[in-house]
Amino acid sequence: MSTQALLDFVLTLDRLKTVERRTSPAGLDRRENSAEHSWHGALCALLLEGECAFPVDAKRAALLLLMHDVPEIECGDTFAYAAARDGAAAAEALGLQHLLATLPVHTGDGLRALWEEFTACVTPEARYANALDRVMPLLHNIAHGGKVWRENGVSLEQIMARNGFIAEVLPRIWQIVWPQIETVYAGAKNDA
Amino acid sequence: MSTQALLDFVLTLDRLKTVERRTSPAGLDRRENSAEHSWHGALCALLLEGECAFPVDAKRAALLLLMHDVPEIECGDTFAYAAARDGAAAAEALGLQHLLATLPVHTGDGLRALWEEFTACVTPEARYANALDRVMPLLHNIAHGGKVWRENGVSLEQIMARNGFIAEVLPRIWQIVWPQIETVYAGAKNDA
Repeated sequence: MSTQALLDFVLTLDRLKTVERRTSPAGLDRRENSAEHSWHGALCALLLEGECAFPVDAKRAALLLLMHDVPEIECGDTFAYAAARDGAAAAEALGLQHLLATLPVHTGDGLRALWEEFTACVTPEARYANALDRVMPLLHNIAHGGKVWRENGVSLEQIMARNGFIAEVLPRIWQIVWPQIETVYAGAKNDA
Repeated sequence: MSTQALLDFVLTLDRLKTVERRTSPAGLDRRENSAEHSWHGALCALLLEGECAFPVDAKRAALLLLMHDVPEIECGDTFAYAAARDGAAAAEALGLQHLLATLPVHTGDGLRALWEEFTACVTPEARYANALDRVMPLLHNIAHGGKVWRENGVSLEQIMARNGFIAEVLPRIWQIVWPQIETVYAGAKNDA
């Protein structure tokens, strides 16, 4: 397998910088892209280790977050509250297989293992990483006054159903964030 | 130290998504920001381990790249070929100190250690990470026909002086990239 194939893949990864999410970073009008989101998540894994309810290898969680959205290069981002979200993982597994096909087997397998561990959400590191992946857009939505929830008709019950998981993994953070969500959501509903 | 201070820092990190670099990702007209660049570098550390001329802990190198540009939240990005580049590290150390002041000591020290190791560029992981940090903008410049070099009057000698270091760390990559630089540079010069 040639070095050139690896360099080609470096530029393929650039395409994650074009995948738009629904939320905007704090203080910005533009939408966040999945590459900068992945950086944010990975660094938050190092930052918030002490908030996790169980022992966790935060460095490995950071690596899971580096890879967790790479299949979006093929599949695009799926909105957190989309009805078709359940089928996203299967499509992403196929997309990832296609993306990694040009890489040396050992390298491709290592990257795929990170994505699979994140997506299965079973190991402590994967549960921690998934909780972080859900906390960040909540913080962004709070910072923007619930704009995305209002625009997409997301109910408080949907927010709880998707994110109650955070309470098990990051209980102190959830105790702070959930009342803020309720406050912001009430305001967003009144504005609508 | 409160959980709220950690959550505040999560949103402080958002500001790295507003720091513009000089180069543009492949296929994009807009400039790259330092957050998505940091994700790209960290993932490339996992991808290109087999290209490194010496044994390296690629996972640790990825963590160094997650933190390497965080002081730019305070200081902004310094162009690779700027005359004042030598003073940048001291300013960044101060900026980082200011940024981390609100964090628990253990957490702040861990993040600062990553930045310091990257910046000292002594350990194998730091040398590998620094080489990756330099390769990515070269690939972007090649993909854009040398636009940034032309716009900023960067000479081929300057490119070699800053990047010859890559040959020691990633020799097979340098053997591919340097001739591409010469070719693109010749075209960029003729277009000017």
